[in-house]
Amino acid sequence: MKLPKDLQKAIDFFEKLPGIGPKSAKRLGFYLLRLPQQELEEIALSVSQLKKTSIYCKRCFHLSETELCGICQDEQRDQSTVAVVEDVLDLLSFETGNHYQGVYHVLHGRIDPLNYIGPDDIYIPQFIARMKQEKNSIKEIILATNPNTEGEATAMYIKRQLLEMFNGEADRIKISRLAYGLPIGADLEYADYMTLQHALNGRRQF
Amino acid sequence: MKLPKDLQKAIDFFEKLPGIGPKSAKRLGFYLLRLPQQELEEIALSVSQLKKTSIYCKRCFHLSETELCGICQDEQRDQSTVAVVEDVLDLLSFETGNHYQGVYHVLHGRIDPLNYIGPDDIYIPQFIARMKQEKNSIKEIILATNPNTEGEATAMYIKRQLLEMFNGEADRIKISRLAYGLPIGADLEYADYMTLQHALNGRRQF
Repeated sequence: MKLPKDLQKAIDFFEKLPGIGPKSAKRLGFYLLRLPQQELEEIALSVSQLKKTSIYCKRCFHLSETELCGICQDEQRDQSTVAVVEDVLDLLSFETGNHYQGVYHVLHGRIDPLNYIGPDDIYIPQFIARMKQEKNSIKEIILATNPNTEGEATAMYIKRQLLEMFNGEADRIKISRLAYGLPIGADLEYADYMTLQHALNGRRQF
Repeated sequence: MKLPKDLQKAIDFFEKLPGIGPKSAKRLGFYLLRLPQQELEEIALSVSQLKKTSIYCKRCFHLSETELCGICQDEQRDQSTVAVVEDVLDLLSFETGNHYQGVYHVLHGRIDPLNYIGPDDIYIPQFIARMKQEKNSIKEIILATNPNTEGEATAMYIKRQLLEMFNGEADRIKISRLAYGLPIGADLEYADYMTLQHALNGRRQF
């Protein structure tokens, strides 16, 4: 393609990224040429370091620079409420609102038999072990996996494991799931049948 | 946002790139975490080097690692035909077809008075000087700026400069412009009025 080697490498790299095609990759590569050298060096350093400086929190498996992540270390947060999420992006969605005050457990995946992902391939055993340990302090477990077949199956599986492990001795621990219904700003006309059914079943006194 | 510093920096960087929003930037950042360390180090090196290893060819101002770019050095190519293009991406479009055998001159912009870009802000003076020097060997100059107002104005300006500079003493030099018409695979139904008019005016014996 007759471009300088390093520029070509950067373009090839962009092209491999999810959602970026060959044309965009070229445009991004040329964009880099216009950035100040210092900025390029800073980003280069971060890229080469990020795997080393991003480890999993040993308690909740969120990304962290330290053994325990900032959320697990934060005494202002309600350490007795745990939201179980599929991945870090889901956790970040929770965090953007500043509304949720509990802590998390990141599964890094979902049970997905069609893709050969079983319960032990994601961080479910670690979650069960953690709950066993924290049984006496925990008050609520929110199963916040995605509202689709795999997320549903994952939530069901975890619930069953928890009930078995608690074995009746922890009736005061609430296991909950996020509400289903119409998203805010939605248009009834375009709502799908399943969502509408859930919104109807879950209707509340007004 | 409670993410490790280096990861956050990479995400912030992606977010600044043209056409990438905050959600995509996060997804790209997490994608980096899954790449092998060696690959990250290679890309980091390229990013920090690319400004140093990408210089302008001193003759045609294409990006190059050497004083003269590969195209200008290539003796297989027709050095007597020059296509004047607005930027390197346009040159790459020409090169993908392997159909054009001449050489180039990259203007790195277009005349655009609304954005305060005049003829001397892009590589027009360098092109005129080059043509003065190569006058005796050059056979054709293809003004391949974009088919819009700015590209048209740029082509017009260069043509006038060339005619003035040649001053009749180089009648054998052909100055041409790319053909206007319907793009291949187009649908007449959706063709715009201007394109259709050009296609009609430029119709050819069949």
